[in-house]
Parts: sequence; C-alpha cells; structure tokens
Amino acid sequence: MIHETTLRTRYGETDQMGIIYHPNYYIYFEIGRTEFLREMGGMSYKDMEEAGVMLPIVETHCKYRVPAKYDDQLIVRTMIKEMTAARITFSYQLIRAVDGVLLAEGETTSGFTNMEGRPINLKKKYPDIYDKLLNVMSL
Amino acid sequence: MIHETTLRTRYGETDQMGIIYHPNYYIYFEIGRTEFLREMGGMSYKDMEEAGVMLPIVETHCKYRVPAKYDDQLIVRTMIKEMTAARITFSYQLIRAVDGVLLAEGETTSGFTNMEGRPINLKKKYPDIYDKLLNVMSL
Amino acid sequence: MIHETTLRTRYGETDQMGIIYHPNYYIYFEIGRTEFLREMGGMSYKDMEEAGVMLPIVETHCKYRVPAKYDDQLIVRTMIKEMTAARITFSYQLIRAVDGVLLAEGETTSGFTNMEGRPINLKKKYPDIYDKLLNVMSL
Amino acid sequence: MIHETTLRTRYGETDQMGIIYHPNYYIYFEIGRTEFLREMGGMSYKDMEEAGVMLPIVETHCKYRVPAKYDDQLIVRTMIKEMTAARITFSYQLIRAVDGVLLAEGETTSGFTNMEGRPINLKKKYPDIYDKLLNVMSL
Repeated sequence: MIHETTLRTRYGETDQMGIIYHPNYYIYFEIGRTEFLREMGGMSYKDMEEAGVMLPIVETHCKYRVPAKYDDQLIVRTMIKEMTAARITFSYQLIRAVDGVLLAEGETTSGFTNMEGRPINLKKKYPDIYDKLLNVMSL
Repeated sequence: MIHETTLRTRYGETDQMGIIYHPNYYIYFEIGRTEFLREMGGMSYKDMEEAGVMLPIVETHCKYRVPAKYDDQLIVRTMIKEMTAARITFSYQLIRAVDGVLLAEGETTSGFTNMEGRPINLKKKYPDIYDKLLNVMSL
Repeated sequence: MIHETTLRTRYGETDQMGIIYHPNYYIYFEIGRTEFLREMGGMSYKDMEEAGVMLPIVETHCKYRVPAKYDDQLIVRTMIKEMTAARITFSYQLIRAVDGVLLAEGETTSGFTNMEGRPINLKKKYPDIYDKLLNVMSL
Repeated sequence: MIHETTLRTRYGETDQMGIIYHPNYYIYFEIGRTEFLREMGGMSYKDMEEAGVMLPIVETHCKYRVPAKYDDQLIVRTMIKEMTAARITFSYQLIRAVDGVLLAEGETTSGFTNMEGRPINLKKKYPDIYDKLLNVMSL
C-alpha cells in the first residue's frame, strides 16, 4: 500500500545555498506518514495520541539525490516497511511533481510508547490500532 | 535592568536571500528572555513551568533594520518593559557583536497562565515569582 | 481584495505547551502572502525574485488570541493594507476552519529591493509589477 | 581527532510530546561540524563558502536513544569518519552534559560542490582545503 500526498516547499525552508535545508526533508516525511495514517488507517496520528499512544522517532535515514527548491510542488510517497508490536518503520520517496524526478529517499522508525514515553506492546495494549496498521500494511 | 546574552546564527536559519529568515528573530528574543530569567530572576523558565506557570505569547512586534547573516555573533539585550499581575512585556535589541550595529528591535508580551493555559493572577497565585520579576524590573 | 488559503498545522510546529510555537504564525502569514501573489497578482513571489525584485521583511506584528493546535486546519486571510513605491504592508487574519474562530491577527511590511538587498523604487524600476500590485489592492 | 561543542536546547525545538523534535538533532550535528571546522581546520564553513566551496548534504542518519528535553545542555562530539576528493562523512555523538548520557548518534555525508552546486574534485580544485581536512582527520 503506497500513499501519496502533495505539499509545496516554503520560503523559510530554504537556506543560503538556495535549496531546501536538509532537516526539512524529515518534516516532509512526517507529513507523509501523518496523511498516510489519516487516510489508510482510518485513525489520525492526533487520534492515536488522544487514545494514549505516541510514536517517538528512534531512527531516521535519508539519501538526498537532487535538491528541492523554493516553491516546488513535492509528492511524498509513504509506505509501511515493517512493523512489530514494539515499533514501526515507514519508508518514503520524495518526488518533484512537475517532472517526476526522485529527489530523496528515506526511512523513519518509531517506537510505540504511552504518554509518559514508556515503550508499550501495541498488539496487547491497543489490538485495534495494531490490527488497523497491520491491515494497511498487507493491502 | 538590561541583560545581555550572545548567540551565533545557524546555517539553517538563513534563507535563499542569504540573510536570516525573519521569524527566527523571535527565537533569538526567546533566548534573550530565557537567559534573562535564569540570571536575573533566580528562576529559569523551566523552573517556572515546573512550578505550574506558563507564559504563552499574546503579542509580538519587531522592526528589522539591518539583516543578520550566517555565522554572525549576535548580542540580545533584554529588559522588562512592563508587568501586571496578568501579563509581562519584554523588549529586546539585537546587536551585531563585531561592530555594535543595531540589527533589530522588538517586544513580546506573554500572559501568565496555569498548565491548562487558563489565565492566572500571578500576584495572588505565585507571589514569590511575581515579586522576583518585579524586583528585577526595578533594578 | 481578500485572499484565503488553507493549511494544516504540523507536528514539529507545536511546542511543549501543546500549542503552535508562536514564530510559526509568521510562516503561516508568509504562505498567505505567497498564495495571494500567485493568485491575485498573476506573478508568484518566485517569479518576482527571478525578475530581480526581493521583498525582505522590515516590520512584523501579531496578536495571538486563541492558540492554534496540532493538526488544525487554518485559513489565512490576506490583504494588502498599504503600498508605496518603496514598501508594501500585508495584513492577515488566522482563522480556525472547523468553527471560524479568529486565532490571530497580524501585519508584515516588506521593502522592495534588488537582488543585492538595496532598496529600489518599484514604480520606476518595475512599473508592470507595481501596477499589478496596485490593481489587486484596489479590487 | 574529536571535537566537542556545547549548546542548550531551545523552547521552540520541543514538540507536544515534551521532547526535542527529531529533525533538530541534525541542526545540532550541523553546529558540531561548523565548530569542528572553525577550530580544527583553521577555516570556518563560512570561509569555505566564500572561497567557492559548498558542502551540500547527500546522506543523513541518526539513532535516537534517550530524548533530549527543553533547556538541556548538550555536548556534540564530532569527528571525520572518512573523506575522499568528492565527499566527506562526519560522525556525531550527542551527550547530555549533566550526566554524560548518550542521547543520540549519527552521521552526515556532504559532497564538495562549487557555488552552482556542481560536484568538484576538492583535491584538485582546492588542494589547500583538502589538505587541511586530511590533516585534521589524521590527528
């Protein structure tokens, strides 16, 4: 299951090289997984936090191929790469809408925790959320 | 009472004009008032939050005179302009360390609230914090 | 002439108070004036920079009434408040889409400069851009 | 050769989980390599850009072990992991100053380019800069 969302880069996201400053790509990835959850899982990330589950990041990785620039329309392609009861890994492609060029690829892994930040077994504690994610993954 | 703190601008704070992106000045002002409170009030902003008081911003204003650039050393001069039991206004000057040029001037006003964001009367609820701030102001 | 654009707040724009960190409102205002120019002026801000005109900020002001929160849909209402050959002032309202509550109001003033950051007389140097903006203002 | 620099986390770098928002770690890494170059290489990154060399990021990676929080003092330990005529990889450790706990580890790889963003052979084009970096690496 691959989800696509579109965004436009912002002026403040550029740096004096005239390109998008690199940590912002992880912000684009977060928009990708937020919209993925909203549309695929039937439960927004906000809903998950309100239910008592947080997904703090434990690992991030990105390869930057072609620089994104100011005012570019970007497509974020998001998918679930793997999931256990303890953590979930999303992978992403960042594509320039105007010509389909692949700008970057990345992955982020989040742990499942309670609101105090302590690891939880999602399968045991929130089987409904776990099943929704598993279901999306197998689509 | 005027407090001075020094910081260095960061690469990611620039934009493609080759200058510091304007909302970052408010981040510099926040560093100014954070260090002001730590050194003048004998109570860090973190301590205040842990005691149950928050200072959400209700108004901001800034005049930009000369652009700050990447890797500049900046001096933030912070003072309390006025204070009531309900709110506090800080004023700031941003100065380029190398030559003393005034880059920007601004003000921010914060309300006093509890941890749920509801307004409080600081003088009644936390007279010790109120007195500390008042004392700094009159120095 | 009032222009409206919609955006959704991002996770990284929150702070530990659980609200949108205040300098981000100026980023929302920038999105407002960017989309204003694209749709009203028939010339994007990117086009203007490519034509040799920059609009660095010289003054900003914002009143924060009700905090924006994570995942809120926000409407930015943008209009031109005043313009001369040397500078332009935009005013903004930030409205929560779900219930129409006014969250914040602000203004930003930009100078017209060349690519080296030196002030220019827009009316003389780029009469076509000047006329487009003037035309939008009087709609 | 390992370089250490210290910074304090900022309020705006937190998110509503009450921890530092993850992309900011890459900003801390950038501060690490900036100060590394200034002190070890005898040439600031600003000097390098003024000489005509840029170091755009081509890959980033970070493992997050323990969350950094607001107002934490952090030590960034930076070293050069490997270097060729085309690119340079820095590695980083992020340590909480108060108790020495390792919060995160990461790497970033930058290509050497000219001011138009085209790859250059640093060894041929700027042998003095290349030798300085090589020298630091072997210390």
